Amino acid sequence: MTGPLIIALDAMGGDFGPAVVVPGAGISAVRHPGIRYIMFGDEAAIRAEVDKQPSLAGRVEIVHTTHVISSDAKPSQAIRRGKGSSMWLALEAVREGRAAVAVSAGNTGALMALYRLLLKPLGDIERPAIAAIWPTVRAESIVLDVGANIGASSKQLCDFALLGSGMARALFHIERPSVGLLNVGVEEIKGADEVKEAHALLRGAQGLPFDYHGYVEGDDIGAGTVDVIVVEGFAGNIALKTAEGTARQIGTWLREAMTGSTLSKMGALLAQGGFRALKRKMDPRRVNGGTFLGHNGVAIKSHGGTDALGFASAVDLGYDMASQGLIERLAADLKAFHGTLQVPLPAPPSAAADGARGS
Amino acid sequence: MTGPLIIALDAMGGDFGPAVVVPGAGISAVRHPGIRYIMFGDEAAIRAEVDKQPSLAGRVEIVHTTHVISSDAKPSQAIRRGKGSSMWLALEAVREGRAAVAVSAGNTGALMALYRLLLKPLGDIERPAIAAIWPTVRAESIVLDVGANIGASSKQLCDFALLGSGMARALFHIERPSVGLLNVGVEEIKGADEVKEAHALLRGAQGLPFDYHGYVEGDDIGAGTVDVIVVEGFAGNIALKTAEGTARQIGTWLREAMTGSTLSKMGALLAQGGFRALKRKMDPRRVNGGTFLGHNGVAIKSHGGTDALGFASAVDLGYDMASQGLIERLAADLKAFHGTLQVPLPAPPSAAADGARGS
Repeated sequence: MTGPLIIALDAMGGDFGPAVVVPGAGISAVRHPGIRYIMFGDEAAIRAEVDKQPSLAGRVEIVHTTHVISSDAKPSQAIRRGKGSSMWLALEAVREGRAAVAVSAGNTGALMALYRLLLKPLGDIERPAIAAIWPTVRAESIVLDVGANIGASSKQLCDFALLGSGMARALFHIERPSVGLLNVGVEEIKGADEVKEAHALLRGAQGLPFDYHGYVEGDDIGAGTVDVIVVEGFAGNIALKTAEGTARQIGTWLREAMTGSTLSKMGALLAQGGFRALKRKMDPRRVNGGTFLGHNGVAIKSHGGTDALGFASAVDLGYDMASQGLIERLAADLKAFHGTLQVPLPAPPSAAADGARGS
Repeated sequence: MTGPLIIALDAMGGDFGPAVVVPGAGISAVRHPGIRYIMFGDEAAIRAEVDKQPSLAGRVEIVHTTHVISSDAKPSQAIRRGKGSSMWLALEAVREGRAAVAVSAGNTGALMALYRLLLKPLGDIERPAIAAIWPTVRAESIVLDVGANIGASSKQLCDFALLGSGMARALFHIERPSVGLLNVGVEEIKGADEVKEAHALLRGAQGLPFDYHGYVEGDDIGAGTVDVIVVEGFAGNIALKTAEGTARQIGTWLREAMTGSTLSKMGALLAQGGFRALKRKMDPRRVNGGTFLGHNGVAIKSHGGTDALGFASAVDLGYDMASQGLIERLAADLKAFHGTLQVPLPAPPSAAADGARGS
C-alpha cells in the first residue's frame, strides 16, 4: 500500500496479447495508483498500446522479447524451450523480487509448469493448487484446487486448506476463515479415503489458523456455507466448469422467457435495472483469474479469451494478494500449521520441510 | 404399453411416507392408465391415502409390513436387518418378476446396498451406477455415475457408457445416443489414468451401440453437447450438487433483482408468464429420480424430501424405462458390447462374463 507495487505481465498471453493485456493493465492502474508494471513481450506492439492509455504514462517498463509460448504448447515443451519467453520472464521477475506478482492470460499448463520450475515451494508444500474465487449468495468463496492436479493426498488436501485460508484472509479480510472439505452426500460412501483422512487430520488438529467446518457438498459452494472449499483438482475443475455451464444455461432460459411474449418483453424492459444488476453479478469477467498458490510467489492466470475488463480483474486480484503480503503470511502459517498436523498424520513426512520438494 | 405394468413402491420411504408416496402414485396413475401398484408398508396408513385417490381405485395391492429401514441406517445395517422391510420387499418384487420396477424415496445407501444384494448384475457389470436426468438448453441428458461409487476403473467407465446409452435410447428414443467422457480441460493433465484408458478403449472399439464423442467438460453438461455424460461417482455427485446449488443461487439473485425497485417489481409482474415458464424449467421436481442401473432390474430413488408431484416424476421415470424394456435391451447390448471392447483392453478380463461379478 505504501510505495509502488510492481506487477509483471506476460503481455503476449491470451487470444489477443497486448491489445487486451495493456488496456486491462490501464484499467487497474486507474483503480490502484500504487501499481507499476513490467511488461514482457514485443516492445513495438506493447508500446503502441501503452501510448493509448493515459493511466499508464510513466508507470510501465517494457522488456522486449519475441519468444512466446504458444497456446497449444505442452508443459514439457514450455520447460524445455520456454526460456526467454514473455511468460518465463514474467515469472522470473517474481522469483528475483523485481515484481510482486505475475499475471498471464497464456497457456495454463505451461504457466503451471514454469511456476513450479521457477519458484520454490513454500515450506513442505508438495503441490501447488489453482484457486478460484466463486461468487456465492453470501459473498465470495475460494475453491481450490480447480485443476492444477488430478487427485490429492490427505496431506495435500490439508495444504490446500491452509493455502486457501491464507488467501481468504488476504482477500476477504476474515481473521479466521471457515474451511470445508468437498465431499459426496451419501453417508455410507462419504468420499475417497484421502478425503476421510484429511477430515480426520483437520478435525484432530490444534491451533489451526482457520475454522474447520467439516464436509460440505456441491450445493454448499453457491450457498456460501464456508469461505474456503477444498477439493482435489479433477472434481474441483468439473465443479467449476459445471457451475459456469449452469449459469450460462439459466441465462439462456431467462432470455427465452423474457422474449417469449409481448408482455414478457415489456416487463423485461421495465425491469431492466434489475436485470442489469443480475447481469453484473453473473458476469464472469468480475471474478476472472485463477490464483496459483503454494510456491514462493503469486501467479494469476487470466482467461485467455477475456477482454480488457476481465484482464483488469485478474490484475486487481494479483494486486490485492501481493499488497496484503499473502506469501509472507502463508510462509508463517505453514510453519505453525505443520507442527499441529504432525501428530495424527498416518505417514508423517520424514524429510525436513526443505527436503520434501517433490511433485 | 399393452397390458398393465406393475410398479413396486416402498410406501414408507422418504420424509413423509404414504402421505407423499400414495398421492404421487395417484398422479402417475392418471398419466399412465397401464400402471398398477404393489405398495409395501403400513397397510392402514397406505389404505387411508389410497382411498383419497380416485385414480388408484382397483389398481393397488397392499402388502403389509411395519418394518422400515430408517433414513440414517447404514448400508451394512440394511443388509443385516432389512429383510422384510418395505424397501427390501419392493426390490424383492422386482427380482421375482412380480413388478417391473421399484421406486423408493428412502435412504440412498440402503437402497443401493439392497439393489446389489437382491438383484443380479447384468452381464459382466462390476458395479451399478446411479444415473441422473439433467435438463440442458437442448433437451435433457443423462449423467452417470452421480454417487453409487467413489472412483471407477476404465472398464467400469465403459460399462457406464453402455448403461447410459441404453437409458437414453429407452427414454429419449434416440437410436444412437452420443456419449462423452467428463474430463478436465487443461490439455496436459487431461484426466485421471482411468479416464484416459476408457477414452482409448471407446475410441478404439468397433460396433458400439452409441456414438462416442470423446471428452467433454463440466460446461458441456448444461449445453447439452452429448446425450450421455460418463464420470465416476465422486466428481459426478459433486457436479450434480454444484449445478443444483448454482441454479438455487441464481434463483435467489433473480428474486432480489426483481424486487429491488418498484419498476423491477412492475416489470416482473408483467413478465410473470415468462417467469412461470422459467420456473417450470428449473423445477427440480420435474426431473426427480436417480436411476439405479447395472443389475437385473430397475430401481428409482426419489428425493426423500419431495412432494407428490416430485414423487410422480420418479414413478413416471420408472414407468418409461420398464415399458421400453430397458433391462432386456441392456442385457443384449452388454453381450454385443463386451465383444467389441475385448481387443484393446489393457488387461482383458480372464473370467467368463458370468464369473466377473465382483464387488
